[in-house]
Amino acid sequence: MRYITAGESHGPKLTAVIEGIPAGLTLTAEKINADLARRQQGYGRGNRMKIEHDQVEIISGVRHQKTLGSPITLQVTNHDYAHWTDIMSPTAEATAENSIRQVTKPRPGHADLVGGQKYQQRDLRNVLERSSARETTMRVAVGSVCQQLLAAIGVEVLGFVQQLGGISADPAKLPELGDLATLRAATEDSDIRTYDADAAAKIRELIDATKKAGDTLGGVVEVVATNLPAGLGSYISTETKLDAKLAQAIVSINAFKGVEFGDGFGLAAHPGSEDMDEILYTPERGFYRGSNHLGGFEGGMTNGEPIIVKGVMKPIPTLYKPLNSVDIATKQAYKANVERSDTTAVPAAAVVAEAMVAITLAQAVLEKFDADALSRLQAQVAAYRKELAAY
Amino acid sequence: MRYITAGESHGPKLTAVIEGIPAGLTLTAEKINADLARRQQGYGRGNRMKIEHDQVEIISGVRHQKTLGSPITLQVTNHDYAHWTDIMSPTAEATAENSIRQVTKPRPGHADLVGGQKYQQRDLRNVLERSSARETTMRVAVGSVCQQLLAAIGVEVLGFVQQLGGISADPAKLPELGDLATLRAATEDSDIRTYDADAAAKIRELIDATKKAGDTLGGVVEVVATNLPAGLGSYISTETKLDAKLAQAIVSINAFKGVEFGDGFGLAAHPGSEDMDEILYTPERGFYRGSNHLGGFEGGMTNGEPIIVKGVMKPIPTLYKPLNSVDIATKQAYKANVERSDTTAVPAAAVVAEAMVAITLAQAVLEKFDADALSRLQAQVAAYRKELAAY
Amino acid sequence: MRYITAGESHGPKLTAVIEGIPAGLTLTAEKINADLARRQQGYGRGNRMKIEHDQVEIISGVRHQKTLGSPITLQVTNHDYAHWTDIMSPTAEATAENSIRQVTKPRPGHADLVGGQKYQQRDLRNVLERSSARETTMRVAVGSVCQQLLAAIGVEVLGFVQQLGGISADPAKLPELGDLATLRAATEDSDIRTYDADAAAKIRELIDATKKAGDTLGGVVEVVATNLPAGLGSYISTETKLDAKLAQAIVSINAFKGVEFGDGFGLAAHPGSEDMDEILYTPERGFYRGSNHLGGFEGGMTNGEPIIVKGVMKPIPTLYKPLNSVDIATKQAYKANVERSDTTAVPAAAVVAEAMVAITLAQAVLEKFDADALSRLQAQVAAYRKELAAY
Amino acid sequence: MRYITAGESHGPKLTAVIEGIPAGLTLTAEKINADLARRQQGYGRGNRMKIEHDQVEIISGVRHQKTLGSPITLQVTNHDYAHWTDIMSPTAEATAENSIRQVTKPRPGHADLVGGQKYQQRDLRNVLERSSARETTMRVAVGSVCQQLLAAIGVEVLGFVQQLGGISADPAKLPELGDLATLRAATEDSDIRTYDADAAAKIRELIDATKKAGDTLGGVVEVVATNLPAGLGSYISTETKLDAKLAQAIVSINAFKGVEFGDGFGLAAHPGSEDMDEILYTPERGFYRGSNHLGGFEGGMTNGEPIIVKGVMKPIPTLYKPLNSVDIATKQAYKANVERSDTTAVPAAAVVAEAMVAITLAQAVLEKFDADALSRLQAQVAAYRKELAAY
Repeated sequence: MRYITAGESHGPKLTAVIEGIPAGLTLTAEKINADLARRQQGYGRGNRMKIEHDQVEIISGVRHQKTLGSPITLQVTNHDYAHWTDIMSPTAEATAENSIRQVTKPRPGHADLVGGQKYQQRDLRNVLERSSARETTMRVAVGSVCQQLLAAIGVEVLGFVQQLGGISADPAKLPELGDLATLRAATEDSDIRTYDADAAAKIRELIDATKKAGDTLGGVVEVVATNLPAGLGSYISTETKLDAKLAQAIVSINAFKGVEFGDGFGLAAHPGSEDMDEILYTPERGFYRGSNHLGGFEGGMTNGEPIIVKGVMKPIPTLYKPLNSVDIATKQAYKANVERSDTTAVPAAAVVAEAMVAITLAQAVLEKFDADALSRLQAQVAAYRKELAAY
Repeated sequence: MRYITAGESHGPKLTAVIEGIPAGLTLTAEKINADLARRQQGYGRGNRMKIEHDQVEIISGVRHQKTLGSPITLQVTNHDYAHWTDIMSPTAEATAENSIRQVTKPRPGHADLVGGQKYQQRDLRNVLERSSARETTMRVAVGSVCQQLLAAIGVEVLGFVQQLGGISADPAKLPELGDLATLRAATEDSDIRTYDADAAAKIRELIDATKKAGDTLGGVVEVVATNLPAGLGSYISTETKLDAKLAQAIVSINAFKGVEFGDGFGLAAHPGSEDMDEILYTPERGFYRGSNHLGGFEGGMTNGEPIIVKGVMKPIPTLYKPLNSVDIATKQAYKANVERSDTTAVPAAAVVAEAMVAITLAQAVLEKFDADALSRLQAQVAAYRKELAAY
Repeated sequence: MRYITAGESHGPKLTAVIEGIPAGLTLTAEKINADLARRQQGYGRGNRMKIEHDQVEIISGVRHQKTLGSPITLQVTNHDYAHWTDIMSPTAEATAENSIRQVTKPRPGHADLVGGQKYQQRDLRNVLERSSARETTMRVAVGSVCQQLLAAIGVEVLGFVQQLGGISADPAKLPELGDLATLRAATEDSDIRTYDADAAAKIRELIDATKKAGDTLGGVVEVVATNLPAGLGSYISTETKLDAKLAQAIVSINAFKGVEFGDGFGLAAHPGSEDMDEILYTPERGFYRGSNHLGGFEGGMTNGEPIIVKGVMKPIPTLYKPLNSVDIATKQAYKANVERSDTTAVPAAAVVAEAMVAITLAQAVLEKFDADALSRLQAQVAAYRKELAAY
Repeated sequence: MRYITAGESHGPKLTAVIEGIPAGLTLTAEKINADLARRQQGYGRGNRMKIEHDQVEIISGVRHQKTLGSPITLQVTNHDYAHWTDIMSPTAEATAENSIRQVTKPRPGHADLVGGQKYQQRDLRNVLERSSARETTMRVAVGSVCQQLLAAIGVEVLGFVQQLGGISADPAKLPELGDLATLRAATEDSDIRTYDADAAAKIRELIDATKKAGDTLGGVVEVVATNLPAGLGSYISTETKLDAKLAQAIVSINAFKGVEFGDGFGLAAHPGSEDMDEILYTPERGFYRGSNHLGGFEGGMTNGEPIIVKGVMKPIPTLYKPLNSVDIATKQAYKANVERSDTTAVPAAAVVAEAMVAITLAQAVLEKFDADALSRLQAQVAAYRKELAAY
């Protein structure tokens, strides 16, 4: 399975094409729209998010709510484009009128300056329109399709906020993972997208104070995935390790600067004897682990325990507090301007991270099992689970 | 540029083939052997490392010390194979005699159990021979070739230990990066492979105590790369972000459970105003940043500042302290046995991480510039640097 | 550079997304529409082609007629969809009303039967909607973008008909290739898309007679590409040979069953002394060849001579003459029905083949040279041409 | 499954590494050596072939004759290297003594000149050592492994000579394909590697005469593969068509200039009604075709009929008859010299083509079915065949 996303932040439409989803999967716009809405929520967002309600159109690859096996095209219209028709027109020639809102002042911490250098642009709008986090809309749409596929083989994926601005949800309050229903209910209810209501209250206060100060906040998101069979990914080479692919997927999200599995960086500080996941066995369960410090991976392979991935998002580098930068046209120093105004986007980023995990896991499943027809895939997965249980 | 590594831990030889290194690069076994030796050092290793002295043979792709542009084959003989000739023979039929040393007791935290399930093995030796960290030998060899390529365009890469068993080197003591000469000298001199002699002393003590306790230690390694031109990688898609590729490369190393760039997970705890890398300009230097919280990446692209990547290695999950596991043949619980005896391999892992960063950066360079002939590559890089300076 | 196409024959829209076209290329819908129109012409087509006038919409990746370096989305609306809205609806649930026009009778020579087996479909419409040659519309659109890129470095590509139904254009009448202007004018003027007016007249008669007989015709198309620098592709491995990639591109076209380069299969029948392209040199031209039996390739690399590729298209396997097949629902034999009515599509296929060659050559160019910014690409190509001339 | 080959014609060793062969396959050097020997036979070869007897060493990925799932390293020693140790040394510095046998005279029709330009070589030995057909040795070794895998699911592949120097084997004499046993026996017995003894006799005479005349001969090889299940490959995109991948594989062979499937280029000359493969059905056989004009492919997918691929090999462009060329050092015209002396290599090329088909089919099988463990793969294939039979 492979996919491409396309589209500029203020262009006419965002597009994704997904190739390699099996035929026979029930797919509706409603579920995708629900995930798009989840991405648009969260305490601490500015105004733009509130006015847009992203709606997906399914353009190909689906007929009567069933996938065909052929490439699936998803599209989301940018309602904002109405106000940018001339400025962002693909087809109109450049004129003085439609070249207003040129950007020559690169914002620190954004792709603006390097993008301008790499692509030889003097109007940095030509960079920021694509490097914008608006692009993650289509990742969420693709991820939603992948979640529906994974659900068809009993795999659940859920992203939430573990830490925001230095305030952590208390791991002791994390509900049993099981089928993720409790955790899902708790985090969906929360505008911080966390399971710990006390932490959420403190985070809300911090966001309010930070907003007042014209500052921004980053955080740590966590994604869990349950019920994956052991043996996805492989130790045999650099390219086949599934945790490594997840690491790429997470760090590829705008503003993400790190990723860890299970206890992650915490593993550096304890002796090994405190961090081991012992192997247990009962005839009913087959092999399982006594704990999950390793976040569901051994040797780059799923080991049957829940996958636990965390990613860190830096604070949005667009502040009301001015930052030093230099105009690319005049070479004059200036104080960086503000184009948008979220105080934090970490709750939304949890939804994006969830999507990236779902995409990567779906790719691993489709690589190991039949990718042509859903019921054949399901039969193979069932046979494999049975085989594992009898090992 | 792509490569494959092959070989079992006690098999006859380890092999790597690299395709796509430009013609005209001077390449000698000496430099590769020096890097292989660096990987074999480090305080806290057991006995095996001391007796082996890995030596590379260059089998193809090089003539009279110059690369030809054709695939380069590197090979390292496993001296141990002399003692395993029958047991590991590729060509002898299985007999009672050569099937001794069968492994049916999977070690927690290793690939043993899942590997056995996935590949339908009842002798887990068939898994652990490949999942062993012995495989990283060839990554270091490939990385050494890549470092020689990068050096030809002025790029330096260096890996070292930042933290071990919870004891950190003091960032305030980190030498100015510059051309990495000072930092290189300091870390090469250290059997902990760190620049902070005080921390090293404490770490040595901790290793001694841990060894005595039959326990193991993990840690955090750091890799820096200097003098890369801005604009490698791209924001335009998930697959083109270079930091994301580095994340995959680091997490693909045996026992690595996380990766971060620049301030990494620390970015979650500070308001944005404290973590921004302001943009500055002088006619002499062109554009540069006032700090490097982001570790050399903006929008998934190099920004011209040094690349700073850190990876966390879990403690080696093979303890003298017994761990619970279950025999796959008898389904009886047992206390896991010890096959090797390093207390920590973090100093060696720093060399492996350095190699993975070098490989990934070389791939990015060869993707953007001519990959056929070294002097053409150098000319293009020089022209590009000039163009960036004039932006 | 990579791309994906999507869309069903009677679905709402066809889509293509192209990633990796350099920034700064002038791109307009007009040129793409002109190529789409070329694909819709040709003597011997049925009625459907006459009523549709494909028009491309550029949805992303282009602003004010200049590429941005970000993914380019192209879309063509299927006007027919108006008549198929219910039957092909992605989002409506299946009902008795919208499930009419179900196909259970696989046509010989089409993907229908195998597609149904592979994707577990009982309504073969779910296969034929994607396996239809309608899909080639987007290849032509992508190819048109690639041709505009190639033109910016002086490379021209042109496809035409060499043989149709056994009647060949006379190679002796082929105009000098040069900049392809004469050949282009001649073939664009011809509704058979060939340069030999006498052959065209005979072909027209054959088509008329064949149509009357309810039969169909195949043929051979030829694509030439001029002014490519020597050294694209490489001999170093299976995957790096550029002629092999072109072979894949050509055979991937619907109904194409073979491909050859230069004298192709004719080379089997002559002794080597008659087929050699001798190497010549003048200070003005540098190295060149005295002939072009090899079609512009030596060792899988362009050699600076024009590329000559030919592909064979089988007759359209949908006849008014009935063919034996078997209903998948009833298992009853029947005479295959006719869904469309072209007598031949070879002239259109020449345009598709031209597109596939353009795409493949553009990929080779962007792999060897800078793929970020057009003027940097042009500078590198110019420097390379100079280097070759001085070899 | 992916693989890399490496090695120079007179270098120390040739190497191949194959990643992704399932665990549990029985693999011995004997079968590979037998295929290597088949490649070295054939009427019309010069002396070099007679003295070398290629022997493979299995270096990794196999234990006690069973694959492990880890990368398989194969190596063949070049016995000639004994005479080239200094000249081809990877590690010795260049000196006057070891730089003899420098090549500055590019041979027409070879990669020499373009390779020199591309890789900036002034000694064309640095090109021809890799562009030599010696490289195909490792393709045959890899192909042999793939044939052993395919045999484990009942798929057979066989290559032979269909035409040589314009003399064709008579298709009417082609034995029934069935399990290929008769055809295999006939072609293995023939030093022309063809099933038609009369044609073979004439070809032998032609080779003798051609040799005397100092000339060379090309030809057409044919590869058949039987018992593949329907539905490998897909119509959904350019990249998923399996016949297109086979086309790439065949044209990637040294000196191959074209490929066709089934009736191939012959399809251009007949009306469609004469070339259709009607669909038939019996409860015992399920669906099948009444003929096989399309060579086993419909819509880029296997259709259950035997695969029929043909490739054309140009005459070896190294003649005793001198050819015009130009020295790259002096720019003086000269008559091209002879480095080797085969009159034809078409019988050997049939073995190489067989290997390339086997590799490509094995990749398709491993993409669709489990690639981890042989018995799981076999179970999935068996279930799939059953499903197809019940369609």
